[in-house]
Amino acid sequence: MTIDFQSLANPGVRTLHPYVPGKPISELERELGITNIVKLASNENPLGISPKAKAAIEAELKDVTLYPDANGYYLKEAYARKFGLEINQLTLGNGSNDVLDLAIRAYVAPGEEVVCSQYCFVAFPISAQAQGAVIKTVPAKSDYGHDLDAMAAAIGPKTKLVYVVNPNNPTGNWLKEDELKAFLAKVPANVLVVYDEAYFEYAHGTPGYPNAFAWLKDYPNLIVLRTFSKAYGLAALRVGFAISHADCAGYLNRVRQPFNVNSLALAAGVAVIGDDDYIARSVANNTAGMRQISAALEALGLPYIPSLGNFVCFDCQREARPIYEALLREGVIVRPLANYGLTHHLRVSIGTEAENQRFIEALKKVY
Amino acid sequence: MTIDFQSLANPGVRTLHPYVPGKPISELERELGITNIVKLASNENPLGISPKAKAAIEAELKDVTLYPDANGYYLKEAYARKFGLEINQLTLGNGSNDVLDLAIRAYVAPGEEVVCSQYCFVAFPISAQAQGAVIKTVPAKSDYGHDLDAMAAAIGPKTKLVYVVNPNNPTGNWLKEDELKAFLAKVPANVLVVYDEAYFEYAHGTPGYPNAFAWLKDYPNLIVLRTFSKAYGLAALRVGFAISHADCAGYLNRVRQPFNVNSLALAAGVAVIGDDDYIARSVANNTAGMRQISAALEALGLPYIPSLGNFVCFDCQREARPIYEALLREGVIVRPLANYGLTHHLRVSIGTEAENQRFIEALKKVY
Repeated sequence: MTIDFQSLANPGVRTLHPYVPGKPISELERELGITNIVKLASNENPLGISPKAKAAIEAELKDVTLYPDANGYYLKEAYARKFGLEINQLTLGNGSNDVLDLAIRAYVAPGEEVVCSQYCFVAFPISAQAQGAVIKTVPAKSDYGHDLDAMAAAIGPKTKLVYVVNPNNPTGNWLKEDELKAFLAKVPANVLVVYDEAYFEYAHGTPGYPNAFAWLKDYPNLIVLRTFSKAYGLAALRVGFAISHADCAGYLNRVRQPFNVNSLALAAGVAVIGDDDYIARSVANNTAGMRQISAALEALGLPYIPSLGNFVCFDCQREARPIYEALLREGVIVRPLANYGLTHHLRVSIGTEAENQRFIEALKKVY
Repeated sequence: MTIDFQSLANPGVRTLHPYVPGKPISELERELGITNIVKLASNENPLGISPKAKAAIEAELKDVTLYPDANGYYLKEAYARKFGLEINQLTLGNGSNDVLDLAIRAYVAPGEEVVCSQYCFVAFPISAQAQGAVIKTVPAKSDYGHDLDAMAAAIGPKTKLVYVVNPNNPTGNWLKEDELKAFLAKVPANVLVVYDEAYFEYAHGTPGYPNAFAWLKDYPNLIVLRTFSKAYGLAALRVGFAISHADCAGYLNRVRQPFNVNSLALAAGVAVIGDDDYIARSVANNTAGMRQISAALEALGLPYIPSLGNFVCFDCQREARPIYEALLREGVIVRPLANYGLTHHLRVSIGTEAENQRFIEALKKVY
């Protein structure tokens, strides 16, 4: 008995290309037989786990046989208190990818349209395609950033949802408060705006960089995404939030798996919310590292996109693939961006000072 | 600006009732002001975490800032080796609920049909409804078990997937090898059979209880689900598997979130696969506890459904809600089943000998 699974699969799924994660260190070790590898490929926090989060996980280990709290009550309570939100505005995700997916599954039916920007974070078009949505990708501006005017103009009668990332991964581009407010004013009330702030903590405080939570009262069609995988340092554990109008959250929570966030993540999340020192150190390390890497790129004459994230997207001034591979041979893993159509760019995450130096030296050697 | 989110939500989502988990101990403490509560409501492993799993988690804590291995390579490798499977037959889930959901999302389009049994595990109809599937629920037999002949007869031209649970939660009913083989022979090749073995380890070894892995070669339309939340004792961490034809797994993996299983779960999973002693102790505790609770129910004259799981569904011989509430006041949480239409039944999970005794004494006091 033979089955043609492709014809059985849903239309959007048939031709779906799943997300390609950064190359694992262990894989490069196996392939090249080298050690002392530096991975600056997945925009991870280089400082290691928050000590408070570690203690919280250890205290929770005795209860690993029990199901997580399906409502994530204590984590939501701590998050709502920290940011002046109501608990019923929150939807917990197994990472922010999960809540991005929930927004699409709750509100976008097959054949309905979504709008996003060229070079936007690829998890969005993947989820949208899996759902069978029609994806309108709006060309980016010449600086690789979202063209908000063109995105607003692309909204049509079948558009259910628009995706905006600020700062955007993988390019680092960011949008200013006045641009975004003008955009939100143009979006019809029945079109949801999923506004992804995965890198918020690094960008926060930059003059002109907005705080979207302040807009939730005026724009009930706004869904803000936040993650604990970056400055909060919990990428391994998978915690993200959608912050929205409570009625909107009600439907997101209906499609959410009840135990989508594990108990250790819930406990670690509460702890890191209370670890302001860790978050401040993470951001300070990033600011210093961004200066270190930017200066080196400038010295090498390699243009880069100014970034408010914990990464920089730089122009290799030639085909990027050989540069990527040459860096691998030097034991430095960065991220190729050909899957975004950026064949001349590479993205490097900000590491510790020593990791950044390894990257800089390898890059100098390659050029 | 006011938005009618119900009309924005997808049709299946609009009227979706999410999963209702067992009452948390902390909630009952708050409500009744009592302590020393026994929770036998969520079919959890009462033995506490496997020592090997605990050590594996502790060793992994240093890397909590890094993303999980998106392929879950080491866990899949260990699982495939233990059960004589190929790695490409496996799809990793954030609990088996997640892979159940993936199967529906990959293969069932809105408006297509799925078939399941009355009283089957409720996660299935919830996911199917979220996807907009048409759910054909086949009346159970008089013993509350799946009526496989009627389920086979319910398959029509629009049927994409059939859900079979063995043993079934919450009833405990189980299906024998010869019944299932006859059923599989009747299902058309282009209709997928999702066969949920969440309680496999407890049922395994019972004469007539099948081993579905042996059927995968003959039935490429078979998707077997297994979980690490029961006998493996990792409910808090969320690990489950779909085991299927490799081509089928290919599409399940396309709709899977790349980091759906967290790093600590991956490490703990590998460890518990190697902890045969823990699994044997878990099963032995369950066998003894099942005898203990069955004997008490018989002594009270309360009929129960013979169960191969780590729980028993018993008939209160009257409206179950007051019995449930009276047990709560005694500090014992069991599971009401009114959401399954079983208004006279309660489900009690098998705990430690002392926990079972607390339940038995509370039940005697109530009756």
